[in-house]
Amino acid sequence: MEYVFGIDVGGTSVKLGLFTTAGDLLDKWEIPTNTAEGGKAILPDIAQALRHKMEERGIQSAQVKGAGIGVPGPVTADGIVDHCVNLGWGVVDITKEMERLTGLPSRAGNDANIAALGEVWQGCGKGYQDVLMVTIGTGIGGGLVLGEKIVTGATGSAAEIGHICVNPMETESCNCGNQGCLEQYTSATGILRMAKKRLAQEDTPSMLREKEHLTTKDVLDAAKAGDPLAAEVVDRMARIMGMALAGCCAVTDVALIIIGGGVSKAGAFLTDAIQSYYRKYAFHTQKETAFKLAELGNDAGIYGAARLMI
Amino acid sequence: MEYVFGIDVGGTSVKLGLFTTAGDLLDKWEIPTNTAEGGKAILPDIAQALRHKMEERGIQSAQVKGAGIGVPGPVTADGIVDHCVNLGWGVVDITKEMERLTGLPSRAGNDANIAALGEVWQGCGKGYQDVLMVTIGTGIGGGLVLGEKIVTGATGSAAEIGHICVNPMETESCNCGNQGCLEQYTSATGILRMAKKRLAQEDTPSMLREKEHLTTKDVLDAAKAGDPLAAEVVDRMARIMGMALAGCCAVTDVALIIIGGGVSKAGAFLTDAIQSYYRKYAFHTQKETAFKLAELGNDAGIYGAARLMI
Repeated sequence: MEYVFGIDVGGTSVKLGLFTTAGDLLDKWEIPTNTAEGGKAILPDIAQALRHKMEERGIQSAQVKGAGIGVPGPVTADGIVDHCVNLGWGVVDITKEMERLTGLPSRAGNDANIAALGEVWQGCGKGYQDVLMVTIGTGIGGGLVLGEKIVTGATGSAAEIGHICVNPMETESCNCGNQGCLEQYTSATGILRMAKKRLAQEDTPSMLREKEHLTTKDVLDAAKAGDPLAAEVVDRMARIMGMALAGCCAVTDVALIIIGGGVSKAGAFLTDAIQSYYRKYAFHTQKETAFKLAELGNDAGIYGAARLMI
Repeated sequence: MEYVFGIDVGGTSVKLGLFTTAGDLLDKWEIPTNTAEGGKAILPDIAQALRHKMEERGIQSAQVKGAGIGVPGPVTADGIVDHCVNLGWGVVDITKEMERLTGLPSRAGNDANIAALGEVWQGCGKGYQDVLMVTIGTGIGGGLVLGEKIVTGATGSAAEIGHICVNPMETESCNCGNQGCLEQYTSATGILRMAKKRLAQEDTPSMLREKEHLTTKDVLDAAKAGDPLAAEVVDRMARIMGMALAGCCAVTDVALIIIGGGVSKAGAFLTDAIQSYYRKYAFHTQKETAFKLAELGNDAGIYGAARLMI
């Protein structure tokens, strides 16, 4: 039997998984992400964790096909990352460094792309070749898989769909420096921002006015309960997301769109609304593009990272 | 020496090219497109033209690597087209039919995708792997090449960027049936439509009011000459196109955007404006994406079709 490691590096913890090359997850665990001193301990810590796991299970290097790794930043096809703000990294040749530290073959990718690959390998995307995954969380992540391979892009930033400009009239800036990005309207932060703005600008009655510390979940719950202002905010979010996804499909013509991330758990009222707006705006041959909810949750990253080595 | 044929089927004529496998165009000629009776003579006419050319030059079948063909409609990865309105075709298995008629290996693709591949092989895209080409003509065509391969898409409609919705408030319908498509603002037809609409709705003085039969060229010429209304129409076109291309790049992160088609010949004032709006709306790692004007003109299709066989 051959093994493969899948590693998903986040800002607070690193998730690690030991897989068979057939795709069975044998073991998973976490270690803290040490971002001190430019995050210089992160890769050595990972290498040590892999060594310990191999000793614990009596696995020899020759039995391991490699260690794939996903990181929160743009990664080129060569495995070089240029700035991972959350890790403290500047330019890091991840593949080379990992191979030096572990003695195992390695490949690296962007975490959102890797998650999409994981879903295609062992999640809701099984059997699909061309998939776009959108992760609706604090921000908007995107992953593009064509022909069962990650599309990396010239600058390692393919599928950065959270930064498609959807409103050229926007005056507030996105974290990326531009104005009017998809993320400003459709992420958890974006939904909350839109709700707060309307509550401040209008007198419309709303159950949201009773909340002292308004959260995105409050807005989604109120929309589900029929609060008109909250429902309009969520409808706007769904319309903007549906239209942007239709635009992404006009370019890529994927067979499946996977929706993941915390906000996607709000329920069918939200994802159905996104799909219905998608259909409205999609090119006629693409109106029946499949929509599925992500299945692997937080494990999508380690699955996808492992898949990189197979 | 080995040969390859490249064929580009249009609504009025079929362009044919004989190439060496090294990419030299040895001969090119045209035959009329016979769209009578559901276009049933089109492929047999092409097969006959290839046979004649081979006889004329004393080329044996064994010396021909194949005949690639581009058609104006969505073509799947298997070479099946589902409706080419301009040719009168319903569902046609082009690859199979061409191989049966010619005895040569064949592959088929969408004409806009094929043109992009041609530019990457022997035109302004030489040396680039990941390219998006936009053809600004009567409509808006798009071709996407990633890793030097055409992206076909699940329904054969990848890179249909003319039908990205850029204005959800639009009430007039696009030819595709949707409202607010990129093509409605940025094609030759779209530019003329915007100008006519403004001339009808406003009293703004403009040299365009003197024209009896206004054309897109009149609008572009007036804009270049400083006519304010025409300049605003062209500026709007450039802004909408630049923003849409930035969105396309957020998804694909290509290294090069190629602009082709009749309207692209209006000059640098137009293409520079598109690029400048592109930079404004592009994701920060993608602001320096290269822009080039297409080089192969009407021959891009036969080049790309030939390249399919190599």
